[in-house]
Amino acid sequence: MNKVRGIFIGRMQPVHNGHMQIIDKILEEVDEIIIGIGSAQLSHSLKNPFTAGERVVMLNQALAERGVDPSRYYIIPMQDINFNALWVSHVKMLTPPFSIIYSGNQLVKQLFSEEGFEVRQPPLYDRLRLSGTEVRTRMIEGGNWEELVPNATINLINEINGDERIKNLSIREISEI
Amino acid sequence: MNKVRGIFIGRMQPVHNGHMQIIDKILEEVDEIIIGIGSAQLSHSLKNPFTAGERVVMLNQALAERGVDPSRYYIIPMQDINFNALWVSHVKMLTPPFSIIYSGNQLVKQLFSEEGFEVRQPPLYDRLRLSGTEVRTRMIEGGNWEELVPNATINLINEINGDERIKNLSIREISEI
Amino acid sequence: MNKVRGIFIGRMQPVHNGHMQIIDKILEEVDEIIIGIGSAQLSHSLKNPFTAGERVVMLNQALAERGVDPSRYYIIPMQDINFNALWVSHVKMLTPPFSIIYSGNQLVKQLFSEEGFEVRQPPLYDRLRLSGTEVRTRMIEGGNWEELVPNATINLINEINGDERIKNLSIREISEI
Amino acid sequence: MNKVRGIFIGRMQPVHNGHMQIIDKILEEVDEIIIGIGSAQLSHSLKNPFTAGERVVMLNQALAERGVDPSRYYIIPMQDINFNALWVSHVKMLTPPFSIIYSGNQLVKQLFSEEGFEVRQPPLYDRLRLSGTEVRTRMIEGGNWEELVPNATINLINEINGDERIKNLSIREISEI
Amino acid sequence: MNKVRGIFIGRMQPVHNGHMQIIDKILEEVDEIIIGIGSAQLSHSLKNPFTAGERVVMLNQALAERGVDPSRYYIIPMQDINFNALWVSHVKMLTPPFSIIYSGNQLVKQLFSEEGFEVRQPPLYDRLRLSGTEVRTRMIEGGNWEELVPNATINLINEINGDERIKNLSIREISEI
Amino acid sequence: MNKVRGIFIGRMQPVHNGHMQIIDKILEEVDEIIIGIGSAQLSHSLKNPFTAGERVVMLNQALAERGVDPSRYYIIPMQDINFNALWVSHVKMLTPPFSIIYSGNQLVKQLFSEEGFEVRQPPLYDRLRLSGTEVRTRMIEGGNWEELVPNATINLINEINGDERIKNLSIREISEI
Repeated sequence: MNKVRGIFIGRMQPVHNGHMQIIDKILEEVDEIIIGIGSAQLSHSLKNPFTAGERVVMLNQALAERGVDPSRYYIIPMQDINFNALWVSHVKMLTPPFSIIYSGNQLVKQLFSEEGFEVRQPPLYDRLRLSGTEVRTRMIEGGNWEELVPNATINLINEINGDERIKNLSIREISEI
Repeated sequence: MNKVRGIFIGRMQPVHNGHMQIIDKILEEVDEIIIGIGSAQLSHSLKNPFTAGERVVMLNQALAERGVDPSRYYIIPMQDINFNALWVSHVKMLTPPFSIIYSGNQLVKQLFSEEGFEVRQPPLYDRLRLSGTEVRTRMIEGGNWEELVPNATINLINEINGDERIKNLSIREISEI
Repeated sequence: MNKVRGIFIGRMQPVHNGHMQIIDKILEEVDEIIIGIGSAQLSHSLKNPFTAGERVVMLNQALAERGVDPSRYYIIPMQDINFNALWVSHVKMLTPPFSIIYSGNQLVKQLFSEEGFEVRQPPLYDRLRLSGTEVRTRMIEGGNWEELVPNATINLINEINGDERIKNLSIREISEI
Repeated sequence: MNKVRGIFIGRMQPVHNGHMQIIDKILEEVDEIIIGIGSAQLSHSLKNPFTAGERVVMLNQALAERGVDPSRYYIIPMQDINFNALWVSHVKMLTPPFSIIYSGNQLVKQLFSEEGFEVRQPPLYDRLRLSGTEVRTRMIEGGNWEELVPNATINLINEINGDERIKNLSIREISEI
Repeated sequence: MNKVRGIFIGRMQPVHNGHMQIIDKILEEVDEIIIGIGSAQLSHSLKNPFTAGERVVMLNQALAERGVDPSRYYIIPMQDINFNALWVSHVKMLTPPFSIIYSGNQLVKQLFSEEGFEVRQPPLYDRLRLSGTEVRTRMIEGGNWEELVPNATINLINEINGDERIKNLSIREISEI
Repeated sequence: MNKVRGIFIGRMQPVHNGHMQIIDKILEEVDEIIIGIGSAQLSHSLKNPFTAGERVVMLNQALAERGVDPSRYYIIPMQDINFNALWVSHVKMLTPPFSIIYSGNQLVKQLFSEEGFEVRQPPLYDRLRLSGTEVRTRMIEGGNWEELVPNATINLINEINGDERIKNLSIREISEI
């Protein structure tokens, strides 16, 4: 009997507690979850400070920390492509076969439903307090971002001085020469 | 004796009556018209809802409907390239040899005139009422878009449920996870 | 009622009588045919001497010459992409919706059948005498290539001095500097 | 204290017992292993029959089967880039920070040693009998390929009819039209 | 003994007196200067009117005019890449080995310092009056742009009618068809 | 009065005495020479061992050594593009305006003559003894390659241990894992 697989894609800049709650809940609904790390090619900007590799570490260690059965999840970095009409095939190329997509994004929902996939709304959580934007803002302003993320995220950011990187990037640039 | 060929490029999102009027008038001035479908790689967005293939059907059927002699036009989808300095060569690679370009766009006019082409202003029509923007707005808001387009456009949009696609895409996205 | 559409893809370097026979026979089986001009980005080599635009002219004029109803065919140039797993979506993006693919190529057959398309063998014709390779060889060696192609191909090749182009390209290159 | 991480890259077409032996031995030398799935963009050819996603499943399940501690490995699909001089940075972008590269390939060894990495020869195993080429040849010829691979590889290939795919791809193509 | 080389990158749209002052001062600090012409692929827009080739002429002739020793500088056009994490390697691929980067841009500073380069602030000059933006604005509005640039820039812009190009590009485009 | 400019393109792997002789002779025929460093993106292979930046140093220093007037030459690295029909525009984008192309390559000659350029055969020299292939072979086999190249090439290759690089790359690779 084939397994029921669902996919959930996020930029994870950085991995925070909201991601972990969503993954937990999706695992109650499917046999295996594919976790796509979106915009894998982006890094070193205020909105996307961390490389794909750094985000893979955060997520991998956070799931191991949490004791999630490693045969039940796949972590896949995904680069953007500039062709909406090829996006579903691109995701399929990079992932195990799946039948359900969890997304709240209208474009993603439209593209996958045109290809015959079942689209489900991702489980709810406290989105106002727990967002990548909130974590990054606290990092820049010296607030308590650590309470919003798993230990694995804290460890990786310390290992690479990620805190300093995002602060440096936030300094206003001098005008063009 | 070689034929005089003119080229006219538009995004055709979707094909509407203004495009058909322009094509009619250009055919009074040249032997053959090349109709470029621009930004062929874009689809599934509010500004570019339809794929290149869908736009080719609209245009091809609208010209057949109208009884335009098929030996007098060429329909060519064209992807964007991000190098202005290569744009003229890119268009030439994809098309029959031509000598006149019809365009109201300053960049296109400048690029082609630097390469020695004759640039002509496209024939006038009622641009305020007949624009891609107007057609797409009416589709989203449930207005009468059908009166602005040829039957071929209506038929194709019905065949692919294009109406529903653009409405879905217009729903406000939930905030980033 | 939706139309039955079939697709047939060839490099058409150049368009020859074999292509025209195949198109005729496919039109007996489907309502509309999509004719893909493959490897659209290639030109100016011994194996691919003609640009996409030049091949579009040959095919368009050959079909008009033959009196094929213009509402029954679509001519679409297609660039190669280096991702087999995205090829079917790429073709779908560029074309009207279709359900049948005509191909004798194992890779194409495999890719489309994995996506649920009906794959048919293209109609037979005299493939030994009528191939792009044979036409190009005769052009280089000064043989009678004209008997293998429709008039439209002869006209276009004369218009662009295509004969001279392929002969020049066949001169052995001097060694690298 | 930072962990010692080593990286090992292979195309894994498909994952076989030799890969598993190498991974076991590397894990005796480092804290964490990064396993790169190379040429991730290739699939559906005789030399590269499986998509990146299919290879991820094989490897992920084979490691779970074997009981390897999930906090000690990372599986990262890697697309080729056509710039040797950017390869090391590309690998670094996609992976956790690492200091040792395991490779028997001269180009890879040269590129990484120019950037100051420690390069180690991958642990030895019976390379004559255990290679991707041998597995694929047996699949095409109907031999016993199953004895060369972990159960996870067998399961995935059965799930996607991979056996039939590679046999179909091996049929000689008819000549170009 | 190896030479100390420093690199300075600018878009040079167009080359102006500020660039020349910076280059003079950097040459007091290093043995050889690498001058990168950034965004080499851009041209024919209001913000980037000139091609890479045109900018190379301006800079090359301005340095010869000034009598700078030709064995002490390198002029290298550099196309943008959309991967911040690969940018340093891309610059290294295109240039002689160097150890110091002169930049006032936070992203550039961060990327190069993560790779162990010494980052220095470019020498100061009168940035308010001497900027590419100021030169381009004066060209469009018919002001005295010539006083802000070296003779070589004036000569090249005259040779290619660059004045007319930027004026044409500044005409407001008619609305989309 | 506009200057007569000629262009000469070579891969320069590495710069050798034949290149210098050609440049000398072309400078007797034109006011300014544009020297294109071809396949700029390639490096670290047996046929293309050196990066674009390394080749720029060799050429720049060799010309300074020789006392060639720096206002009379331009050195431009050029990446390959996979579209023959765009090649002429790509070269034009990267270079000062020119009217003559020096090339012995049939494809280059055909492409530029179709665009109306004057094509000249590069001046002759002893091509059997003086080729990039010969220099690279001697480097691998430990022969006297130094006598075939200018001092600038020797200096740069010593600075980067280029000798060792090409020897390492020539070691036969072990079979695929």
